[in-house]
Amino acid sequence: MRNVTFAVTQFAAEREQARNLDTAEQMVRQAAAEGAQVILLQELFADPYFCKTQNPAHFDLALPREGHPMLARFAALAKELGVVLPISFFERADQAYFNSLVMIDADGTELGLYRKSHIPQGPGYEEKFFFSNGDTGFRVWDTAFGRLGVGICWDQWFPEAARAMALMGAEALLYPTAIGSEPDDPGYDSQPHWENTMRGHAAANITPVMASNRTGAEIEDQRTVTFYGTSFIADHTSQLIGQASREAKGITTATIDLDEVAARRRSWGVFRDRRVDLYGRLSTL
Amino acid sequence: MRNVTFAVTQFAAEREQARNLDTAEQMVRQAAAEGAQVILLQELFADPYFCKTQNPAHFDLALPREGHPMLARFAALAKELGVVLPISFFERADQAYFNSLVMIDADGTELGLYRKSHIPQGPGYEEKFFFSNGDTGFRVWDTAFGRLGVGICWDQWFPEAARAMALMGAEALLYPTAIGSEPDDPGYDSQPHWENTMRGHAAANITPVMASNRTGAEIEDQRTVTFYGTSFIADHTSQLIGQASREAKGITTATIDLDEVAARRRSWGVFRDRRVDLYGRLSTL
Repeated sequence: MRNVTFAVTQFAAEREQARNLDTAEQMVRQAAAEGAQVILLQELFADPYFCKTQNPAHFDLALPREGHPMLARFAALAKELGVVLPISFFERADQAYFNSLVMIDADGTELGLYRKSHIPQGPGYEEKFFFSNGDTGFRVWDTAFGRLGVGICWDQWFPEAARAMALMGAEALLYPTAIGSEPDDPGYDSQPHWENTMRGHAAANITPVMASNRTGAEIEDQRTVTFYGTSFIADHTSQLIGQASREAKGITTATIDLDEVAARRRSWGVFRDRRVDLYGRLSTL
Repeated sequence: MRNVTFAVTQFAAEREQARNLDTAEQMVRQAAAEGAQVILLQELFADPYFCKTQNPAHFDLALPREGHPMLARFAALAKELGVVLPISFFERADQAYFNSLVMIDADGTELGLYRKSHIPQGPGYEEKFFFSNGDTGFRVWDTAFGRLGVGICWDQWFPEAARAMALMGAEALLYPTAIGSEPDDPGYDSQPHWENTMRGHAAANITPVMASNRTGAEIEDQRTVTFYGTSFIADHTSQLIGQASREAKGITTATIDLDEVAARRRSWGVFRDRRVDLYGRLSTL
């Protein structure tokens, strides 16, 4: 038996970065106090979701990974609390800008960097204006609490990303997210679609999947995105074992026996029966 | 607008092949009378699910595709009713045996053959004893009622198969199926896991997905499998738009506007944003 307690968190961003960082730290502390060992914060939690419009002023929010004060702060927090923290941040790398994440282990060590592979572009989610396609490829890391894979938001829509991480041995898949209403299609609610896509990854890969999403309405230049929260943890069969509401700030935890999941994954046979000789079409558009 | 009405059917197999073929024909006639244009029958519907044990006598059930009387009968039925019929059958091809399907168009034409790619093996589902791995690769066909892709049962667990068919332009994915209880794990119910894996394919590929599953308990050599029915049709966001019960014989229909789905698929952007440069890992075990 190898029980790990995961937490997904969600909150509404404020304008002041310092307040968001304080909120994030408070939520990590509270989740740890509730027993969580792996604590997921939402995508780009330091700021409002600045991709609602194409405002070049927001490039100023990016910082290099080396010497990044937020990463140092959360590494110290991870070490103090003994928890694993995947930290999403806006990365500047010379002339390039990435939507990135550093995996921080429970001793405060930075295990490595992942740069978001799939970048969306549409009204309210103008990410191709800000981010280059990630160049790290998919990553998994051996943390103090299991081998973890992370995708960032739009990555969650791609079965290829989930499968690649599962093939690399991921024991859980974590998705920091920022998704809500469609400004040009206000009646459309993508929440069930979004949730079921990821639950499908859990089911197909016999691997728990979780997402931390923003909540609250953010407005910029007359464009509003209302993030729909519903951060969740799905087990290896895709059943929800914890889910937050659409609006409320909060922490959702669930404990999973990763050894039990590994036994189920092995005995079900889907990895044994893959037909890699037939999958060439997946490497084409 | 291009509305197509799909039907998924399910029934409990009897010992007599002639009775199963009559039942299947009656269900096709009834579904057509209810307006269905594409009618899906369950996997290997002509017989009880003969893979519950490893009894070599059952190889006698296989017949070559050429001159197969059941295929001729259902081609004539398709033509008479003007419906598309994907027909699952046990195929002998010289020394090889396949779990196969012929797609029959609404004018009775055989559009082509698909041989099940992913073959399961476990207590109650001893398919590696009977079937070679399919050698056709994934197939889609332009029928009178849309470009359709078909996977067979265990194929439904593989996001690679669904994605490959979607990339080939499938407008709906159809899965004839035979799944139920686990004889060596009688308390385990895989139904939600099974359903959500396929609903995940619908969600990730923005493509309707449907399955026809067997119902009823079948017993052979003291081994019982109770098939759990729940044949369903999920829309392009994974929402169920029709589902049968676990036990009852029945027909479930749903009408889908394939042009509307195509517009949604295109505008959501997931096919645009695939990172085929990063998917090499999927072609390895």
